[in-house]
Amino acid sequence: MAEGRKGREIHLKSRPQGEPTQSNFELVEVTIPEPAEGQVLVRNHFMSVDPYMRGRMNDTKSYVPPFQLGQALDGGAVGQVVRSRSPALKEGDFVVGSGGWRDYSVGNAKGYSKVDPKLAPLQAYLGVLGMPGQTAYVGLLDIGKPVAGETVFVSGAAGAVGGLVGQIAKLKGCRTVGSAGSAQKVAHLREKLGFDAAFNYKDGPAAQALDTLCPEGIDVYFDNVGGEQLEAAIGKMKNHGRIALCGAISQYNATSPTPGPRNLILAVGKRLTLRGFIVSDHQDRYADFLRDMSGWLREGKVTLEETVVDGLERAPEAFIGLLRGDNTGKMVVRIAADSAGS
Amino acid sequence: MAEGRKGREIHLKSRPQGEPTQSNFELVEVTIPEPAEGQVLVRNHFMSVDPYMRGRMNDTKSYVPPFQLGQALDGGAVGQVVRSRSPALKEGDFVVGSGGWRDYSVGNAKGYSKVDPKLAPLQAYLGVLGMPGQTAYVGLLDIGKPVAGETVFVSGAAGAVGGLVGQIAKLKGCRTVGSAGSAQKVAHLREKLGFDAAFNYKDGPAAQALDTLCPEGIDVYFDNVGGEQLEAAIGKMKNHGRIALCGAISQYNATSPTPGPRNLILAVGKRLTLRGFIVSDHQDRYADFLRDMSGWLREGKVTLEETVVDGLERAPEAFIGLLRGDNTGKMVVRIAADSAGS
Repeated sequence: MAEGRKGREIHLKSRPQGEPTQSNFELVEVTIPEPAEGQVLVRNHFMSVDPYMRGRMNDTKSYVPPFQLGQALDGGAVGQVVRSRSPALKEGDFVVGSGGWRDYSVGNAKGYSKVDPKLAPLQAYLGVLGMPGQTAYVGLLDIGKPVAGETVFVSGAAGAVGGLVGQIAKLKGCRTVGSAGSAQKVAHLREKLGFDAAFNYKDGPAAQALDTLCPEGIDVYFDNVGGEQLEAAIGKMKNHGRIALCGAISQYNATSPTPGPRNLILAVGKRLTLRGFIVSDHQDRYADFLRDMSGWLREGKVTLEETVVDGLERAPEAFIGLLRGDNTGKMVVRIAADSAGS
Repeated sequence: MAEGRKGREIHLKSRPQGEPTQSNFELVEVTIPEPAEGQVLVRNHFMSVDPYMRGRMNDTKSYVPPFQLGQALDGGAVGQVVRSRSPALKEGDFVVGSGGWRDYSVGNAKGYSKVDPKLAPLQAYLGVLGMPGQTAYVGLLDIGKPVAGETVFVSGAAGAVGGLVGQIAKLKGCRTVGSAGSAQKVAHLREKLGFDAAFNYKDGPAAQALDTLCPEGIDVYFDNVGGEQLEAAIGKMKNHGRIALCGAISQYNATSPTPGPRNLILAVGKRLTLRGFIVSDHQDRYADFLRDMSGWLREGKVTLEETVVDGLERAPEAFIGLLRGDNTGKMVVRIAADSAGS
């Protein structure tokens, strides 16, 4: 490899107050270090933007440490090994890791997992076969525990996780109801993803939509958004219903505490379980997930939806758009112009 | 038995708006019907007042039907069979049933359970050996699932349920923290019930008290009150903490929806489980409960606390006081003046 290889990376320039803006980010040219013993150098093809990254832009303690000002962001990325100093990976291998928001990443080989580009397009390892896919899988099956014949409601259903939750629930014999933020997305849910019913949460009160679409109530609610839809779902839950708390995108840009569900008291009489989870606790289910999800993909039982934004320099724009709901399906940024993807 | 036996019962005269008042209740003299085939006539000695009854005074659907206007209230009561037309019970038997708020109850023998007045004072079957005791037992052990060495916080800790939660948690090797509404109750928690720490929630923000008393966080929160203390507890929960949602007495008299916990989103990153429960779902644990609790009582490991109000006519006053927190331990009304109780 050439000495003094140059690459670009996106730094966090300032912490967003409310909705992030371009000025919170900075594209910086850097010299890529040589990999040390045990490390690999990976050229990124695609990187992921995910809602959870918004939390890491605040300076608050959580299950993942906050991003540091003046340093590169990180997150899921898939690429190809161009230099290896580890027996675990060889040059030419395709890998997924957490070195996103940059052209090249350098890191310990143990931090990367080999992926098979013949099984699915490379960027699928950031979506349906990656963290969002596994989030949908364990969140629905292990936290929500749906039973055939039950009604499953998922918010943010046009997103990377929500769309898979609906499709898996359908495969498990459930009635599926989804919400999204535009008429086009709602049509997509019904026509492409096989939802039994869907509504645009911007059209009116969620409680009213759920009254109409879930007349007999909800057994499992997969919550990606929090706020008004969580309250509405609690109101429509059946006895012994389960709520998988996955995220609360409606609140991520909030600058002051947002009201909690005023009807949480109903959880007593209805014997509801609300359970928060994060996917990294469920690595024991990774093999099951990969087997099931790749099988469903192969058999055409799961539809792969994505929104691709071209160019590392547009990653901030992609992320800002994600929080606004600009995407349908998994949103990724194509970093390597020569990577055709799917 | 005499023909045309007279008795008194308390009717719901009007539905309370906010805090109940005496004018919502009416003491009515009635003629007690003869028990039919399969029924018994029971003379009540003690009746229970419980927070859940407030919900039944509203005209809303819940897990127990609402009380009807112009009819007798009902609820837990313990008494003696004075006339039996069932082989299941004989005259002189002591029984617990749900025919409270009256001098005499008549009902199917199957609706009553025999109790042993030698094992514990009669009114204990309305408290430590009755519904509140079983609520504490299953809510703490089966919903909260504490492990020795963990920190258990219980609100409403001077109440019938909360006081037992703290004592059971202590028996299981946990560190126990309780909240109550007066300095006297706080002293009671520490000195009589063996709580490791306690605070008066009226003294200042609950979040501040929990910061001081649970510096390492909370593993299990047993919620009797909802509102501010629930939010404060969510803020102090450790990762993988469990919240048993038992009741929300701070909200029972509310006339408009009360704010939910603004920090519920923390349940995701902390992987919290919030689970509502009602004791009647857990009858499969009744034998375990009775064996354990009566054993602890016999061995002096559980302290029996109660507040006794004398006279059926004072039952509304007792109930109103219960919602205000006038009681320490189980609040009961002595109906039969000749019943010495404990």
